[in-house]
Amino acid sequence: MSQPAMTPTQFEHALRAKGAYYHIHHPYHIAMHEGRATREQIQGWVANRFYYQLNIPMKDAAIMANCPDRDVRREWVQRMLDHDGAPGEEGGIEAWLRLAEAVGLDREQVLSGELVLPGVRFAVDAYLNFARRATWQEAASSSLTELFAPHIHQSRLDAWPEHYPWIDHSGYDYFRKRLSEARRDVEHGLSITLEHYTTYAQQQRMLEILQFKLDVLWSMLDAMSMAYELKRPPYHTVTEQAVWHRGLGV
Amino acid sequence: MSQPAMTPTQFEHALRAKGAYYHIHHPYHIAMHEGRATREQIQGWVANRFYYQLNIPMKDAAIMANCPDRDVRREWVQRMLDHDGAPGEEGGIEAWLRLAEAVGLDREQVLSGELVLPGVRFAVDAYLNFARRATWQEAASSSLTELFAPHIHQSRLDAWPEHYPWIDHSGYDYFRKRLSEARRDVEHGLSITLEHYTTYAQQQRMLEILQFKLDVLWSMLDAMSMAYELKRPPYHTVTEQAVWHRGLGV
Repeated sequence: MSQPAMTPTQFEHALRAKGAYYHIHHPYHIAMHEGRATREQIQGWVANRFYYQLNIPMKDAAIMANCPDRDVRREWVQRMLDHDGAPGEEGGIEAWLRLAEAVGLDREQVLSGELVLPGVRFAVDAYLNFARRATWQEAASSSLTELFAPHIHQSRLDAWPEHYPWIDHSGYDYFRKRLSEARRDVEHGLSITLEHYTTYAQQQRMLEILQFKLDVLWSMLDAMSMAYELKRPPYHTVTEQAVWHRGLGV
Repeated sequence: MSQPAMTPTQFEHALRAKGAYYHIHHPYHIAMHEGRATREQIQGWVANRFYYQLNIPMKDAAIMANCPDRDVRREWVQRMLDHDGAPGEEGGIEAWLRLAEAVGLDREQVLSGELVLPGVRFAVDAYLNFARRATWQEAASSSLTELFAPHIHQSRLDAWPEHYPWIDHSGYDYFRKRLSEARRDVEHGLSITLEHYTTYAQQQRMLEILQFKLDVLWSMLDAMSMAYELKRPPYHTVTEQAVWHRGLGV
């Protein structure tokens, strides 16, 4: 006999328990939070994480491209507007660029993608490709790391101004903006998820999908650790010059 | 005025110069080659690299799925037969499994994929996804890291039996087998490449594609360095238990 499905409450509890693997526990994040990160490490994080920001609206478009339910699309499209902006709304990507400037990065250099490490690119691309190929419900539920996002945004707002007085405060708008947006998004994503996965096997599958997304976030920080903490960026044994590819656009 | 195209000889020279970034120069490879790798590091490499082996025939199928030229497909399909095997031919994947057993790994555990690190999975998946989405010529030419493969296979055959007497010699069949296959494949890939990219801009694009493939191989070893050399596998700050996802199958 197969295992009985979890109740919605139990399932939500199991999803929230995955927070144990959120990248808030990664040494790179912990160092940033505790004020031990160098200027180069902060800049590296902002420039690399920008690639994630850039891909979020494409991920959301991929979900909608596979979703025949107009009501879901009408709600989900708000995420694109939040990130890309709309008339009178600069959007999250622009807010992130202001964060980049606030930590001393050049806007054009960040936009060029030349600072994005291959390991970061591959992890983010895996997330986008999953959204393109999975069902819309699976892709939508993979966004549920948002369950843990308000906490990490708040922790940055609490700790960074004190530890890094050299960061211009105008850079923190992104985190403030996402505090409320992530809380709203998580309600929508959670209701889709709790409704869609109704057997035990499906629920286990969804926990694996959430783990995949946690792996994406963790791997991004691993690549940054290699480059900016351990001083082993790609090809460090070969040349000082960064030569990695900057996105092939397929 | 735009820059003139390289001659085929110059272009081939530029492609071969990319060998400076081949993973033969990665510290993880160098340690294996010089006999400094632990048993766990060798096993980790074999188990993780198996995920690459598994994906190669899918990559080749993706190239053929986008290729309307029957003559090219008739030649390219040999790569699938080489890896997957055919009547009376065990194939490269099976040979790799014998390598896994020769280094003391359990065949079923390797097949389960549970040892495959997320960073390795994301890098390999990036290669497969590139092959699915790029033109068949671009995807075919991305395989040109084979230019440098015979050298690395030969270096393993030369160094490993001496440094690692505990590895059963039957495990080395894969490297021997690939010595001649890679030389044949590279002729085909190179002729497609030299013929297809005829403007300077196209040739630069192809060099970026080759760099992308080099980044895939380098990133795989970075993830293994984190896990098996630096003892920072995913979630090492959280729990000793590996919990990462084992492939979502989309």
